[in-house]
Amino acid sequence: MSMQLSPAIQELIHALRLLPGVGAKTAQRMTFQLLERQREGAMRLAHALTTAVERVGHCEQCRTLTESSICTICANPKRRDSGLLCVVETPADVMAIEQTGQYQGCYFVLMGHLSPLDGIGPEDIGLDVLAQRLHQDGLHEIILATNPTVEGEATAHYIADLARSRGIKTSRIAHGVPVGGELEFVDQATLGHAFSGRKLID
Amino acid sequence: MSMQLSPAIQELIHALRLLPGVGAKTAQRMTFQLLERQREGAMRLAHALTTAVERVGHCEQCRTLTESSICTICANPKRRDSGLLCVVETPADVMAIEQTGQYQGCYFVLMGHLSPLDGIGPEDIGLDVLAQRLHQDGLHEIILATNPTVEGEATAHYIADLARSRGIKTSRIAHGVPVGGELEFVDQATLGHAFSGRKLID
Ligand SMILES: [Zn+2]
Ligand SMILES: [Zn+2]
Repeated sequence: MSMQLSPAIQELIHALRLLPGVGAKTAQRMTFQLLERQREGAMRLAHALTTAVERVGHCEQCRTLTESSICTICANPKRRDSGLLCVVETPADVMAIEQTGQYQGCYFVLMGHLSPLDGIGPEDIGLDVLAQRLHQDGLHEIILATNPTVEGEATAHYIADLARSRGIKTSRIAHGVPVGGELEFVDQATLGHAFSGRKLID
Repeated sequence: MSMQLSPAIQELIHALRLLPGVGAKTAQRMTFQLLERQREGAMRLAHALTTAVERVGHCEQCRTLTESSICTICANPKRRDSGLLCVVETPADVMAIEQTGQYQGCYFVLMGHLSPLDGIGPEDIGLDVLAQRLHQDGLHEIILATNPTVEGEATAHYIADLARSRGIKTSRIAHGVPVGGELEFVDQATLGHAFSGRKLID
């Protein structure tokens, strides 16, 4: 830029570019709007960011993002007693499935997927923790709801092998989720259908 | 949402929705990405927001956003001595014009435009301050670069009348800026052309 913007303005533009989908022009637009018309909103956002980073960690049981040691889903006895464990890649996937209202079991959130090229192996996505849960009493089905991408499928196969070796029934959500798409963006009806139409992995 | 998200996560999603162009889904995606993979970035953003809100105010002479009492453009003697004063609606417009590299005068930033229906009158956009500047020695042209929208044109006419009553030459940027569009999004070549092709308002 030929114009010398104040350092504090430049830094805010740079920091906003860290947000997904925000380019240089959008960051500049956000910065000017915040400083011209939304200073209270900017302070609210700063506070929300700090508070969330300080307070939000991972659920000890399912690894999803939560402020408690155990998330509300894992803490619910009805869900624990269901004997169902759905494995997903991200907390956003949990939200998408919850919004269908069709699933009443527990989750295990990988916070990613296997990606050997990026050096992401089984322990990086908590599969050692998941392996321990497979010994849990009353667990009778693992539902694999990783994304239908190359990495998601590879991760699902890896977990299916693990579950098979422990003799636990394993299914993969099947219908409706478009191949190459991301679970988080699938509509509720399609995702509900994918659940009810799940197939056993033999 | 049927899933009970942690309050700190919910608040961050709500606060991100204050950003222009960010809807519920995007805010959720940003929140999860920040908490899953960019906690340092989130803290950097929180700090940048706080610092900018605390430090950035308005230039005493041109009203643009700056950390100093007088911005770098107003503080430049060559620009002051140019005798040119370009009136724009926002700091983003200043940046867009600076990027053409074709203008070497000063600016006056309205931080908006006249909008009687929203209760925005002349003093709300600093026209009382601008009126005082019209007495300044050596000022020989006002260039009106408000947006070519209904409000921008009305504002330009109002200022043109003001300048005419003080006997100061007044021009309006003319060619190339698409009617109904916003100055900030016009490419540099078009905007440069609009400057060189400006017409006197008689
Ligand atoms: Zn949990
Ligand atoms: Zn200034």
